[in-house]
Amino acid sequence: MTSTRTITILGSTGSIGTQTLQVLAGLGEQFRVRWLTCNTRWEDLAQQVQDVQPFGVAIRDEVACAAFREHSGFTGVILSGEEGLCTAAADPENDVVMSAMVGFSGVVPTMAAIRAGHIIGLANKETLVSAGHVMVPAARASGATLLAVDSEHSAIAQCLVGEQVSSISRLVITASGGPFRATPADELVHMTAAQALRHPNWTMGAKITIDSATLMNKGFEVMEARWLFDLPASKIDVVVHPQSIIHSMVEFVDGSVKAQMGIPTMLVPIQYALTYPERQPLDQPRMDLVALGSLTFEHPDRERFPCLQLAYDALEAGGSAGCVLNAANEVAVYAFLEGRIRFTAIPEVIQRTLHKMEHVTDPSLSVIVDIDQEARIVATEHLSHV
Amino acid sequence: MTSTRTITILGSTGSIGTQTLQVLAGLGEQFRVRWLTCNTRWEDLAQQVQDVQPFGVAIRDEVACAAFREHSGFTGVILSGEEGLCTAAADPENDVVMSAMVGFSGVVPTMAAIRAGHIIGLANKETLVSAGHVMVPAARASGATLLAVDSEHSAIAQCLVGEQVSSISRLVITASGGPFRATPADELVHMTAAQALRHPNWTMGAKITIDSATLMNKGFEVMEARWLFDLPASKIDVVVHPQSIIHSMVEFVDGSVKAQMGIPTMLVPIQYALTYPERQPLDQPRMDLVALGSLTFEHPDRERFPCLQLAYDALEAGGSAGCVLNAANEVAVYAFLEGRIRFTAIPEVIQRTLHKMEHVTDPSLSVIVDIDQEARIVATEHLSHV
Repeated sequence: MTSTRTITILGSTGSIGTQTLQVLAGLGEQFRVRWLTCNTRWEDLAQQVQDVQPFGVAIRDEVACAAFREHSGFTGVILSGEEGLCTAAADPENDVVMSAMVGFSGVVPTMAAIRAGHIIGLANKETLVSAGHVMVPAARASGATLLAVDSEHSAIAQCLVGEQVSSISRLVITASGGPFRATPADELVHMTAAQALRHPNWTMGAKITIDSATLMNKGFEVMEARWLFDLPASKIDVVVHPQSIIHSMVEFVDGSVKAQMGIPTMLVPIQYALTYPERQPLDQPRMDLVALGSLTFEHPDRERFPCLQLAYDALEAGGSAGCVLNAANEVAVYAFLEGRIRFTAIPEVIQRTLHKMEHVTDPSLSVIVDIDQEARIVATEHLSHV
Repeated sequence: MTSTRTITILGSTGSIGTQTLQVLAGLGEQFRVRWLTCNTRWEDLAQQVQDVQPFGVAIRDEVACAAFREHSGFTGVILSGEEGLCTAAADPENDVVMSAMVGFSGVVPTMAAIRAGHIIGLANKETLVSAGHVMVPAARASGATLLAVDSEHSAIAQCLVGEQVSSISRLVITASGGPFRATPADELVHMTAAQALRHPNWTMGAKITIDSATLMNKGFEVMEARWLFDLPASKIDVVVHPQSIIHSMVEFVDGSVKAQMGIPTMLVPIQYALTYPERQPLDQPRMDLVALGSLTFEHPDRERFPCLQLAYDALEAGGSAGCVLNAANEVAVYAFLEGRIRFTAIPEVIQRTLHKMEHVTDPSLSVIVDIDQEARIVATEHLSHV
């Protein structure tokens, strides 16, 4: 019988947050929820606290927090602002912290959890994209464990169980290719947010779905893999696999390749991170290769999707490049979602921002926070030029 | 720096034996060859002893052994007969014994290696098919380690590294489908040995290539998996995958599936067994999924290929059924190779032999040896009736 462990979810009202609560419901008494946190969706949070009765909540947005206080009827601890999130993340009572916030907003709270030495389920890839060079040494220093919750990195981690890092020759991250995989270059310019949000295989939040359409999500995953598995970009390849059945692969020095596969669902990587190193039953439909018939593979088109190359370039540049890449991408993606820029302008905004910003070799976390702010201002200025 | 380990190859002149020597050449000083053994091919053996200078050789066939003594110029120890093979297999100087003989002939020498507590690279699947219920407890008692050298079982073992056996929900063994995968039922009867020997993906010995064409090889692999991984037949599935890139898969209780992949070459599973639990570089072409384009999957056709079902049935029957199945299959396959029976008569000979032979619930090794002899006589009698 496993003893009860304590979990805090940063970003519990988002896509990964709600699916984490779904997985926890299946795991029963094995986990007790300590904190739930959100940005603005206080009504969803009010529903969640009734179901799981956490010790406390932290709501970043002060207005949302006031509304929650007034209407939720929640009798536990209520904190607000980034400070509140950091308190929840760093709580010594936590065993596991699920980092499931969207974008750069997750960086500081995730760092608080890392410094506290917790086990971190990392669904917020922008954290490592922006600040991997700070996060990973901090985790090493505090004894924190970073477990990937991305399906791709969870796949790689599963393939690496029982293997030696020195025997890896290459990681192969699979990409669905997104909704525009087969869209001709000259049509991409006309693609709307509604079209970009129709992902063929995965149901995810809006930000990551657009990142998936531009292939920036895949670029981020290459950067994330670099930090999680301590490998150079030259050993991390991307292959387009439209069925999203093989979630990623590891090639070893003897030519043997291990792949982790399954129907596309985030429930598997979420539960794997929670029960790691064990596996526990999960009542979900099973992969049926015969019903699928075939799995196909192609090279990513780096000309139609320049964001992938921008990510490789930022990884090579190192330092502040990842933070600037991420900040400019966030600004551009939200501008695209609001219909303010074209789909093909997203990489342009990023490229111009990277060009404009000064390169900093080894920025500390507080410098990264400043660079993120500055890059957003620069990117926003460029929105009208593309 | 790894210290030098000692290896003996049972069946060094066969397909797996010669490829084992090729792998050993690449591993350099890590291994010293203790014994090489063969059945009749003494001239090939004479060449091999010049290259690797073993301590001794054992040649099953007395005539071949006499010729070797006279012409090879070998100055090491020379043994003959099954007793000689068993002496080589059981030699306390052995660290690893590669069991690479063909068919039932490997059973007794492999048992000698198991009883001596060595690490066994098991390429001779008929050993477990005929006598798994004796071999596996013997290995447990002596502390011998059984490492699969079949590509399928090596794949499963690689997927299971670092995982708990209790978290397995299913094994999926892949099958190329053999040269007659797409041959209509009414044409199978006309297929010749020459046609059956043209395997689409693998270069192997004649016996296993015919077993591959009838799918008996796959049935044997299901039986082998039952013993190697201690799972019931109901948890071992077969899926046809004509490209032979995915070598086999494991599905876990959480729905996650791990697959081991690569270009079809026995060098990888051979080396993996030799260097286990480590991996070492192997200079071979790498898998290129984009160049392959697609991987396809279909159900095996148990009506056109009754041997697969015969194997499942023998596994369920237990006791002597595996030994009889294997003996009758060997007789039928060699008769087919000699043009004495039709391709479609192979399962008929086996079925008639199984029907004729008395079932023995828990035969000892010596009883198995007797049953094997008797089954061969019965099968041979039936050759003229089909």
